[in-house]
Amino acid sequence: MITAQTVSDNLEKLREQSPLVHNITNYVVMNSTANALLSIGASPVMAHAPQEMEAMAGIASALVINIGTLSEEWVEGMLIAGKKASERGIPIVLDPVGAGATPFRTKTCHTIIKHCKPTIIRGNASEIMALISSEVKTKGVDSTQSSEEALEMAKTLSQETGAVVSISGPTDFITDGEKVISIKNHIPLMPKVTGMGCTATTITGAMAAVCENQLEAAAYAMSIMAVAGEMVTPKAQGPGSFQMHFLDALNNMKSKDISKYLKL
Amino acid sequence: MITAQTVSDNLEKLREQSPLVHNITNYVVMNSTANALLSIGASPVMAHAPQEMEAMAGIASALVINIGTLSEEWVEGMLIAGKKASERGIPIVLDPVGAGATPFRTKTCHTIIKHCKPTIIRGNASEIMALISSEVKTKGVDSTQSSEEALEMAKTLSQETGAVVSISGPTDFITDGEKVISIKNHIPLMPKVTGMGCTATTITGAMAAVCENQLEAAAYAMSIMAVAGEMVTPKAQGPGSFQMHFLDALNNMKSKDISKYLKL
Amino acid sequence: MITAQTVSDNLEKLREQSPLVHNITNYVVMNSTANALLSIGASPVMAHAPQEMEAMAGIASALVINIGTLSEEWVEGMLIAGKKASERGIPIVLDPVGAGATPFRTKTCHTIIKHCKPTIIRGNASEIMALISSEVKTKGVDSTQSSEEALEMAKTLSQETGAVVSISGPTDFITDGEKVISIKNHIPLMPKVTGMGCTATTITGAMAAVCENQLEAAAYAMSIMAVAGEMVTPKAQGPGSFQMHFLDALNNMKSKDISKYLKL
Repeated sequence: MITAQTVSDNLEKLREQSPLVHNITNYVVMNSTANALLSIGASPVMAHAPQEMEAMAGIASALVINIGTLSEEWVEGMLIAGKKASERGIPIVLDPVGAGATPFRTKTCHTIIKHCKPTIIRGNASEIMALISSEVKTKGVDSTQSSEEALEMAKTLSQETGAVVSISGPTDFITDGEKVISIKNHIPLMPKVTGMGCTATTITGAMAAVCENQLEAAAYAMSIMAVAGEMVTPKAQGPGSFQMHFLDALNNMKSKDISKYLKL
Repeated sequence: MITAQTVSDNLEKLREQSPLVHNITNYVVMNSTANALLSIGASPVMAHAPQEMEAMAGIASALVINIGTLSEEWVEGMLIAGKKASERGIPIVLDPVGAGATPFRTKTCHTIIKHCKPTIIRGNASEIMALISSEVKTKGVDSTQSSEEALEMAKTLSQETGAVVSISGPTDFITDGEKVISIKNHIPLMPKVTGMGCTATTITGAMAAVCENQLEAAAYAMSIMAVAGEMVTPKAQGPGSFQMHFLDALNNMKSKDISKYLKL
Repeated sequence: MITAQTVSDNLEKLREQSPLVHNITNYVVMNSTANALLSIGASPVMAHAPQEMEAMAGIASALVINIGTLSEEWVEGMLIAGKKASERGIPIVLDPVGAGATPFRTKTCHTIIKHCKPTIIRGNASEIMALISSEVKTKGVDSTQSSEEALEMAKTLSQETGAVVSISGPTDFITDGEKVISIKNHIPLMPKVTGMGCTATTITGAMAAVCENQLEAAAYAMSIMAVAGEMVTPKAQGPGSFQMHFLDALNNMKSKDISKYLKL
């Protein structure tokens, strides 16, 4: 069950275990997501070469695949790593960045879903909807839909793929196709900082590495994002200072911050 | 005409329209330029794969091509996107990062200019001069020339290519080959932060997307850079804090800041 | 000899000469290491295309090769640049990021060492040990060994390769195979910020460019890292603010800061 207490307990577990999270991710967020993982207490590695995907996915505790600056050469590495991670039974989190914006992205997501069987798919409303309906378009990598509008399609996506689906937005929804967890903290500056969605995804990977239940893992991760956002909001004078304070907040977050801010 | 008022009016227009700016840019600045676009109110997308260049340039309102960490594989994507953008009549801004430092960079710029017909070329003095004279060298990506020295060559480059040319430096010059606009705000910390030139280029792309007149668009963008730099200068304790406050300033900039600081 | 005074004198020399440092480095740290070089007073260029490696290494004052997000396509560029740098007699600094984590990384390091003959190898304890013993593993890119444990293998590596070896950790050790310099400033937040090792490497490159003696150059660079870390520690409220203040400290560091903080 998701409560402030279980979020806090699992954050503690994450910090104790410091899981190695293998990221095949986009150029835009490599620095910020590596820093987010270090700040929350995990150990990041960014690697994509097909030649080392078996070895790297072979020592990691979770795999994150993010297609934000996709190119054909990288898909091969994603599939090798995904297959290895799948064999080992470690969690795989897919971030379908910009699905719906171009057919290349949407198609690649379907290929990854088919061959790697992600345990969690985390995206914004447009991206999640684009994986179900070819009529939904994405404005580049920004959502044009509300997370409420995406919820039914998220359930369908979850049922079709077997993955937990996590939608970020003013309200976050996490579903396993039946149950739905919602997180109601609305942080207006968050969409003004690039890669906050990707940060949510990589923290989802870290949490998935230390939790058995993937629905709960995804919800714990979004809870941590929400609480960090609330901690930062009074201090931030704009997107630049928000980004900086956010890393500090991930590092400094305590049980009492979670109790104070989390809105389930 | 460029005045504090028209800069302010066009910034307002940019924020209302929130244009999607497609960037094919270098690894160094992907995060910082995406954040600059979000902070100023635009919507960034970073994408380079040939497989999605037609689709992405097909939904964007401007295309930015920046050769900062050039490789042969990326040139193909640049040319496809440039051709599509050109067909659609959306603005194309070229940043010839490091032109003059190596023949590969200079030659690639000439290829892009020939095939994509950029509407604006924005670089530092050495880069602009290197596009006209093979005798001008660049120290890596840093200029060894003053913007004053580059002005005549910038006019020639503009006349030869049909592009507006925008030179950054202690004084910025923007020219369409005849008219010259100069911006006299000198911000000493700016060259100590990597990618401030690239930030100027991408904001030029955003402004070009919402303005008919490309000379004015380029001048509005450099005006916004200058004003943000002035807003930040009293607060910055070095390059690190300058970079952070700069994003806040782009987000928070008001009409009165422009009136107070802009030196045309 | 390494004293606060010689560190200060050589920092002054670096700032006067502002050497061009050519980096072939990983995606995660391209922005942060370019900023570190600008902040310390050097001139960074990031470039990797085989087509321009001779030209770029031909104008640089030092070459930094960092394998953090290695792919096969990049190795070719590293080898061309390394060969050119070696011919010209400019310093070459190798950062074996993640050596020991995958065979691909370890093997590539051996190839680079053989063909480029780096003047300095700078890594964490696990990485340095993995270059000597195939039984040492690395947790992704984070060390699982202490720098003390790595010292004997570092001496061996230095004797076998002819390179100065610089190990970062709570205590840093720099050795030419016989002499050992140690720097005892322990900065707890440093491993919580991604790429601080890579920053040490690139500053080592800048210092190597302006110093004859490569053992001293490596020690000056680690001294500057240590002093900047101490300057920042009282101000940092977490990893995010540490990273920002660190760049300011590199820019603002004065002789008196070095005297005050450096623990040799």
